[in-house]
Amino acid sequence: MNNDLHTYLKDNKKFIDQALLNYLDQKGPASLLSAMTYSIKAGGKRLRPILMIATAEALGSSREVCVPVACALEMIHTYSLIHDDLPSMDNDDFRRGQPTNHKVYGEGMAILSGDALLTHAFYVLGEGKRFLDAETVLRLYQMLAEAAGPTGMVGGQVLDLEAEEQQTPLDSLENIHRNKTGALLRFSIIAGAIIGNASEEELSTLHTFAAHLGLAFQIKDDILDVEGDVDVIGKPIGSDEVNHKSTFPSLLTLDGAKQRLSQEVEMAEQALTRLHLSESSMLRAITHYMVQRVS
Amino acid sequence: MNNDLHTYLKDNKKFIDQALLNYLDQKGPASLLSAMTYSIKAGGKRLRPILMIATAEALGSSREVCVPVACALEMIHTYSLIHDDLPSMDNDDFRRGQPTNHKVYGEGMAILSGDALLTHAFYVLGEGKRFLDAETVLRLYQMLAEAAGPTGMVGGQVLDLEAEEQQTPLDSLENIHRNKTGALLRFSIIAGAIIGNASEEELSTLHTFAAHLGLAFQIKDDILDVEGDVDVIGKPIGSDEVNHKSTFPSLLTLDGAKQRLSQEVEMAEQALTRLHLSESSMLRAITHYMVQRVS
Repeated sequence: MNNDLHTYLKDNKKFIDQALLNYLDQKGPASLLSAMTYSIKAGGKRLRPILMIATAEALGSSREVCVPVACALEMIHTYSLIHDDLPSMDNDDFRRGQPTNHKVYGEGMAILSGDALLTHAFYVLGEGKRFLDAETVLRLYQMLAEAAGPTGMVGGQVLDLEAEEQQTPLDSLENIHRNKTGALLRFSIIAGAIIGNASEEELSTLHTFAAHLGLAFQIKDDILDVEGDVDVIGKPIGSDEVNHKSTFPSLLTLDGAKQRLSQEVEMAEQALTRLHLSESSMLRAITHYMVQRVS
Repeated sequence: MNNDLHTYLKDNKKFIDQALLNYLDQKGPASLLSAMTYSIKAGGKRLRPILMIATAEALGSSREVCVPVACALEMIHTYSLIHDDLPSMDNDDFRRGQPTNHKVYGEGMAILSGDALLTHAFYVLGEGKRFLDAETVLRLYQMLAEAAGPTGMVGGQVLDLEAEEQQTPLDSLENIHRNKTGALLRFSIIAGAIIGNASEEELSTLHTFAAHLGLAFQIKDDILDVEGDVDVIGKPIGSDEVNHKSTFPSLLTLDGAKQRLSQEVEMAEQALTRLHLSESSMLRAITHYMVQRVS
């Protein structure tokens, strides 16, 4: 990773971490806040908010304008992890090396803290009215609800549950990821574009960029599950194989998955090039980072 | 119940039932839709949507304008019942005489169908833009998120979980209900008022009305748990006592609770009288019905 990118990621993560905590201040009973804050603080790299910021900046807007939308998105991402980890779902005891929410606070509170983060996200998003006109905030509201809801992330999670313990064809696997992880990732970029006043043509090209980047991100995740370092990833290696989950390496071989990853990255880059953005170097650098990461 | 009210409730319930199903049409994987639809169809009297409609109509607006907001509210009410019934929460096998969502679809799917209804509600609410200006829809978005979130319904559910198995003082019990059930009920009336273009003074008086009605509604629920008819209510009588839950009858005696119920209804009615609404007879009739109901 080059120094500029390292500084950019670190600085923006700190910026988003602080904004998230501000939005949780005094919002509800102490025990609930404690459980919500635990998972927000256990958060990772804030990739989705940073993608939103980088896209908005590439179009001439600023990160301050992104804050409410980016925090709403990160709260929804966080709630989805809490619920995914529950015993009746993936039944994970650890995430990023830390005990999962229900291991610390119990199942009932984990469900409620997820519900609270999801609901509060839609309050926080509304704070976008400080910077954006009401029509734009309304558009983002419906886009986020679609990306996170039954035709987006939650739908993808259902398809993923149903695909367990069986061989999944490649097109079904891609469809699962397009919904389960892809929908929020695409939202991060499209919301950044809308905040940056992108033209319809730019929006369409950024859609293509986001679709390829999202798929590349998931293929990389699957590859890391095969050959990653347990201490860096914070969860057991090979868990997909143990759980009999179809993955890109299991369907395409490891080499085939790496080849597909390169193709997706190339198509994402080509889309970026077509955009002729005044300042797209950071978006390009993040794309490379996302697929070269080791965790 | 008089004939006019009976017809009004029945007709509006049918109207809302149909609108809810329309908003779920083809929204996600078949299995998820099936679980969401099961609980939506198991829905009860649609009291919250009908209160919203009656309030909007009392101020000269129409039920058509209420549809997106009323359906969003009912979806959130429905998701909260699905999650409340889960084994790690109230662990209920039946609701309104039918098996609860997780008994039919399993815990994982019940959690996800709740998440999907909550998220989709925030898409549906946005459809209010067909009738209302963007600023008004945005205001309703943030009000609904507050009513349903950590400082509203979810916060109340946490307080309720924490109050189990212990004697709760009366003011704490009132605070639990003000959040757990009161917040959505107040929203139904205030949203109806905003849709009906209420003045600030009218809004403030309707707040008072809604607060007393909400408390009356909960006291009536507690009384029904002591002396209701199991076949009419659809759940075991005396479950609060079995669960060692503090209730209005347990803290005030049954007679004391009935007295308090009368007081709350009287104050709700006084607020309605102060409003001098052109057409408040239906709102008044619903108030009476809500506290005289047998289920």
